[in-house]
Amino acid sequence: MFEPVKNTRVYEKVVEQIKDMIIKGTLKKGDKLPTERELAERLGVSRTSIREAIRALEVIGLVESRQGSGNFIRESFKDILLEPLSMMFILEKSNPKEILELREVLELQTVVLASHNINEEEIVKLKTLIEEMLKCSDENISVELDKEFHYTIAKASHNRLIINVLEVLSYLIDKFIKDSRKNILADKSNREKLNHNHENIFKALECRDSIKARISMEEHFKLIKENFTE
Amino acid sequence: MFEPVKNTRVYEKVVEQIKDMIIKGTLKKGDKLPTERELAERLGVSRTSIREAIRALEVIGLVESRQGSGNFIRESFKDILLEPLSMMFILEKSNPKEILELREVLELQTVVLASHNINEEEIVKLKTLIEEMLKCSDENISVELDKEFHYTIAKASHNRLIINVLEVLSYLIDKFIKDSRKNILADKSNREKLNHNHENIFKALECRDSIKARISMEEHFKLIKENFTE
Repeated sequence: MFEPVKNTRVYEKVVEQIKDMIIKGTLKKGDKLPTERELAERLGVSRTSIREAIRALEVIGLVESRQGSGNFIRESFKDILLEPLSMMFILEKSNPKEILELREVLELQTVVLASHNINEEEIVKLKTLIEEMLKCSDENISVELDKEFHYTIAKASHNRLIINVLEVLSYLIDKFIKDSRKNILADKSNREKLNHNHENIFKALECRDSIKARISMEEHFKLIKENFTE
Repeated sequence: MFEPVKNTRVYEKVVEQIKDMIIKGTLKKGDKLPTERELAERLGVSRTSIREAIRALEVIGLVESRQGSGNFIRESFKDILLEPLSMMFILEKSNPKEILELREVLELQTVVLASHNINEEEIVKLKTLIEEMLKCSDENISVELDKEFHYTIAKASHNRLIINVLEVLSYLIDKFIKDSRKNILADKSNREKLNHNHENIFKALECRDSIKARISMEEHFKLIKENFTE
């Protein structure tokens, strides 16, 4: 399970060993890491090196330190991907339009996958969300329902990579496009159009009609892009 | 530019300050960081904390340490995204089919974007690559030409986020689907079909025909999926 470590860049080797344990399945999501002392003994390195390695893993978002109870492998991938994607976004001097475009690229095809893979439970969930959106007059709640609608479609793709990437993208949009969703919903005629879009997407998914699903999603993004102001 | 730091988790604060400098544009891609001593003085923290912070930034792939010349902000985003995406892939126990599916989702729509945004230079580049692929009999070179062809289409989207994400995905595929590309190319009739696919994609892009471009890319992925073995 563990191999003693010999190298100048000791903490890197420790990071690699912990990653190896993840790759081999010895450590899984939510698992507790051995204590710093145990790790130091088993790997034959100083506790300082262990601490450096754990801090590095914390920064990647792979490990979470819980006060008093130790270090754990994280459960959520938002944390693993959000930071690096945000940094890439900033260093590339990307504009918010590019995030929106990436989201469009992903969602137009994810809805096609969803139309093949959606199950009854997810259809019921979408139906409920649409009914709630129609009744809802509170903008903040509308925004949350809208997000949930798109997230449910992503989940219906039944591809965990796509679900995670779209979830992170949704956070990126919230982070870099201030009030992006609210701005669209503020206009009453937009709200009606959006509700209509959502209904069309839902109907297409209910009939497992991939072509209609894609076209409805295209119309939806057309509206979003028309209302996008930088 | 710098604010003195007071906290128990000192290294995290240092990481945040360096990130802030990136966000504000004080530090850009390829820039050299101040020396550890300078940073320690300016931020009013110990050199140990600075070293921890820099190591953490190295692990994220944001900073690169060059022996003898100091610490630099990285130029490439492959390094920033590859590790977290790999870890997500492993922790989610994703199967290689999911990576391929994510790539398909992205490429089917990226080729549509490319058909709108491609420039003359990129068209010439694709034409050259197709001619080289037709002539090429070496499998390893064929694999590289194939990758370059898809990468050029990604670049023709003129969206840097999409370019970076597809590039990382390409590395993930190489990492987790052993010989994925070679396996397809080993069969002569597949090679001919692939060349034909590539030509159709190219012709559609040359005419800026987004519908044909997408259909040709769909056919291309159909072939890839038929030849995919886990």
